[in-house]
Amino acid sequence: MVIELAAIPDVQSLPDTRNLSIDRVGIRDIRQPVRIQDRSAEEQHTVGTFGMYVQLAPDVKGTHMSRFVEVLEEHPGVYSLATFPELVREVASRLGAERCEVEMHFPYFMQKSAPVSGVTSTLDFEVTLATELDGDDIIEQLTVEVPVTSLCPCSKTISDYGAHNQRSHVTATVELVEPLWIDDLIALLEDKGSCQLYPILKRPDEKHVTELAYDNPKFVEDIARDVALAFNADERIGRYRVTVENFESIHNHSAFAEITGGMDDDDEADEASRPVETNGTNGAH
Amino acid sequence: MVIELAAIPDVQSLPDTRNLSIDRVGIRDIRQPVRIQDRSAEEQHTVGTFGMYVQLAPDVKGTHMSRFVEVLEEHPGVYSLATFPELVREVASRLGAERCEVEMHFPYFMQKSAPVSGVTSTLDFEVTLATELDGDDIIEQLTVEVPVTSLCPCSKTISDYGAHNQRSHVTATVELVEPLWIDDLIALLEDKGSCQLYPILKRPDEKHVTELAYDNPKFVEDIARDVALAFNADERIGRYRVTVENFESIHNHSAFAEITGGMDDDDEADEASRPVETNGTNGAH
Amino acid sequence: MVIELAAIPDVQSLPDTRNLSIDRVGIRDIRQPVRIQDRSAEEQHTVGTFGMYVQLAPDVKGTHMSRFVEVLEEHPGVYSLATFPELVREVASRLGAERCEVEMHFPYFMQKSAPVSGVTSTLDFEVTLATELDGDDIIEQLTVEVPVTSLCPCSKTISDYGAHNQRSHVTATVELVEPLWIDDLIALLEDKGSCQLYPILKRPDEKHVTELAYDNPKFVEDIARDVALAFNADERIGRYRVTVENFESIHNHSAFAEITGGMDDDDEADEASRPVETNGTNGAH
Amino acid sequence: MVIELAAIPDVQSLPDTRNLSIDRVGIRDIRQPVRIQDRSAEEQHTVGTFGMYVQLAPDVKGTHMSRFVEVLEEHPGVYSLATFPELVREVASRLGAERCEVEMHFPYFMQKSAPVSGVTSTLDFEVTLATELDGDDIIEQLTVEVPVTSLCPCSKTISDYGAHNQRSHVTATVELVEPLWIDDLIALLEDKGSCQLYPILKRPDEKHVTELAYDNPKFVEDIARDVALAFNADERIGRYRVTVENFESIHNHSAFAEITGGMDDDDEADEASRPVETNGTNGAH
Repeated sequence: MVIELAAIPDVQSLPDTRNLSIDRVGIRDIRQPVRIQDRSAEEQHTVGTFGMYVQLAPDVKGTHMSRFVEVLEEHPGVYSLATFPELVREVASRLGAERCEVEMHFPYFMQKSAPVSGVTSTLDFEVTLATELDGDDIIEQLTVEVPVTSLCPCSKTISDYGAHNQRSHVTATVELVEPLWIDDLIALLEDKGSCQLYPILKRPDEKHVTELAYDNPKFVEDIARDVALAFNADERIGRYRVTVENFESIHNHSAFAEITGGMDDDDEADEASRPVETNGTNGAH
Repeated sequence: MVIELAAIPDVQSLPDTRNLSIDRVGIRDIRQPVRIQDRSAEEQHTVGTFGMYVQLAPDVKGTHMSRFVEVLEEHPGVYSLATFPELVREVASRLGAERCEVEMHFPYFMQKSAPVSGVTSTLDFEVTLATELDGDDIIEQLTVEVPVTSLCPCSKTISDYGAHNQRSHVTATVELVEPLWIDDLIALLEDKGSCQLYPILKRPDEKHVTELAYDNPKFVEDIARDVALAFNADERIGRYRVTVENFESIHNHSAFAEITGGMDDDDEADEASRPVETNGTNGAH
Repeated sequence: MVIELAAIPDVQSLPDTRNLSIDRVGIRDIRQPVRIQDRSAEEQHTVGTFGMYVQLAPDVKGTHMSRFVEVLEEHPGVYSLATFPELVREVASRLGAERCEVEMHFPYFMQKSAPVSGVTSTLDFEVTLATELDGDDIIEQLTVEVPVTSLCPCSKTISDYGAHNQRSHVTATVELVEPLWIDDLIALLEDKGSCQLYPILKRPDEKHVTELAYDNPKFVEDIARDVALAFNADERIGRYRVTVENFESIHNHSAFAEITGGMDDDDEADEASRPVETNGTNGAH
Repeated sequence: MVIELAAIPDVQSLPDTRNLSIDRVGIRDIRQPVRIQDRSAEEQHTVGTFGMYVQLAPDVKGTHMSRFVEVLEEHPGVYSLATFPELVREVASRLGAERCEVEMHFPYFMQKSAPVSGVTSTLDFEVTLATELDGDDIIEQLTVEVPVTSLCPCSKTISDYGAHNQRSHVTATVELVEPLWIDDLIALLEDKGSCQLYPILKRPDEKHVTELAYDNPKFVEDIARDVALAFNADERIGRYRVTVENFESIHNHSAFAEITGGMDDDDEADEASRPVETNGTNGAH
């Protein structure tokens, strides 16, 4: 039996009389196997979780949600910062929208060599590519969450021996002015904690990272500032936000620092009167 | 043995030469038993999760994290939108900061009466109070996440019988121009889905909500627009963001819509060049 | 208009021909404000998340889910290990079941005094009361998750200075042979890490906990064994499971140890051929 | 500079005098890119999260955590139910243990064809392989979590039109007596809800699934029983546990059912006196 599509009403395309455009409408939390292209020669296989949104005109009742998924299914599945704008333009075109945003979140893996033994192992990072299209304008954002060790300068200074330390997350969202490898941004952040993390550490390595962290104490404030200094000096990076969260080993709460920067004078004015945003900085879930 | 505090170095107060102020530094994910004052005569006991942040001057190495907790411990523990600014001023004063933000997230409970039987039961909502102090300026935000039933207009129209429906989250963050009860904002949002939720539904109630949802189909777009229309007509509410997420019963992903509004013309300009933000709309965790 | 309940079919009570009893059927993830009675004189207000289940006979189609919520709504809302069996019997009675289980999970708060300054502050713990009724038999379980500091003995021994440390979760589930205060079980576990946690630590306190943890290094294995030794010597505790998870500060994964004990010889035999269980030990979510 | 490993003390290998064996010690929440071999000809790339544990003898202080990671790093990275026992034996051998457990959790993807249009799209499932080695005995478990639509028989029967429905999770853990494809277990569970899920549904498909679910109403009890019946008749499956959770569209809590089966008479006796377990059924986090 052939079912004629034309005979089934298209409810989404009905007119809407409320005269309110919708800033973002689409789908989220949809997962696909993906391949990521970055500096390293080979593509990396991982799993992407997508959010895909368009602006909806005030006179249309609804968007066509299945088309977002169709774009994903028809896509060859290889993603990079260089090609993400094409994906966003394809979504905008398919949905007939002027404004469009696509985000893809995924675990990303890098080989680490233990600092003394040189033993290699695979460390995981959370990465998000996000691109926003507004007419002809494209804004590309890269977010990486990098786990590091942080060791408390106060604890070290005031104690006769030892110093509390813990795992910390250094997270940066940067707008790209020029191309930037994911690997490079991760490496930049890893370098700013008291010490990097490694999945495998043999005993000489463990001795090394223990002493290195002790020799290199840092508050959340220190890590955030050192990242911001590096970003300010990096021509590839425009506006940015860096946050540092210490999962304190001596408390049951986190220490947190955040710096937003890279803005020109006009942007500073905008910041002062920024629109409502749900900060999401309180760990609520 | 008396330990003399003066003899222990205050590392946080050391000067910093990087000449970078920190936008927000403080603590997060700290929990306390709290009481919430709202419209109802009696206070409500619940558990608050706090984020507390100050701006740090460019010439100081670190903030004094323990003072944030001290403010919480010394506080009588009764919170409301009316008294939250006092808390923020106290934090700013104690930390010696010009700018300060405090967020408190908590489950909030309201009595619901089943629509036919009238049986009462207790429904839970996620609520966040957030106040930002900048010099003499105070911005107060209230966020509520309201679970509702949504029933798909397309599914209803094209099917001979039945219609897919699901639990949805309608979440609004509003800046308060005039006082607004948490209860009122929740009730406003509950009214905009296809049907409200109830912990207890007797059989006549279940018949009622089933038929009511079928009589009142709504896309995520419809719910977002109906909330925005109500906000635009409400003088207590300034700038706002409303999001609707359907945990689709026919897919393994969500449908999503978002409207940001309540801005004057200048704000619109800001929106166009808004600073970097981590949207957090992709379900990343 | 009066709707006559008798006129509405009771689908759940229909007969079922598949001849399969259901081990556990009910509701979960329902939240209510609750009060907890424990050793301290005053009741503690918090928020409980319940799971409530009964066994269903092979010849009945479904249980009556709304009755679980009714029991909660009619309950005075004050819970303790001593009174939890009454709640379970009430659920069993209302649902007409021989077997019944009720779990209540909640954040629980204790006052901590900083070790040197004596400054008090409020620390949060995750606690679960669970009671299983089978005919006339009652099994009462108490679970507490206690955050502590752990400091690595290997890192300390092999390094010239410093030692990596981190926040750890020590979690114990115990079957009660005699009454046991939540406070006592928490205190027992807190004592077995390298150092306890405190929300407020003044500088002399921070010096103290830093040095104490360094003087008291422990692997996950050490903490698990020290808890098991204490449990084996405690007549209030029957069968138990203790787990320790270190959120390693030098890795992006956890170290983990688990001991199950308190069983007599017959139980040991059971353990060898234990039924299928979803361990939930892999951090899956 | 050569650091001589022999000169660095091996703290883990020190003797322990507490005379307590540790049931499970190891690492968890470590992620790696993996390939899964199943029925389909091609391997599937995804991301695995591992838990790896051994039993520790009573006279040894600690296990060697880095060896677990070494086994993963040296592994070719292709996993299947058929080859998982080799991995577990390798872990046991490397750690010198008699008892060993390895779990790997991963998102798994299957192609779905929409029921009328035939459009294909990719649906994600949560899968866990878990193998336990005890001397020469091997127990292999496969867990799949399958999202489906469930439509309430009561709501349909008592209402003049419509019926509430929602996304549900059908989760089964099975012990394998004979080989079983992941694809087959998923397909078996998908078939037991009111309707399957699809990422892409064109309008004729949406009409089909809406009406199919309405024609096929099922309680959590019905789905659990239908799965259990299928398992009881399947010679590949030994002991099992099936759970069904409805994220109710008319409540803010879940309906839940669980059946444990496939046990012989001896096992039944074990079940009656099962050891303490942390059920994890209360949504605690």
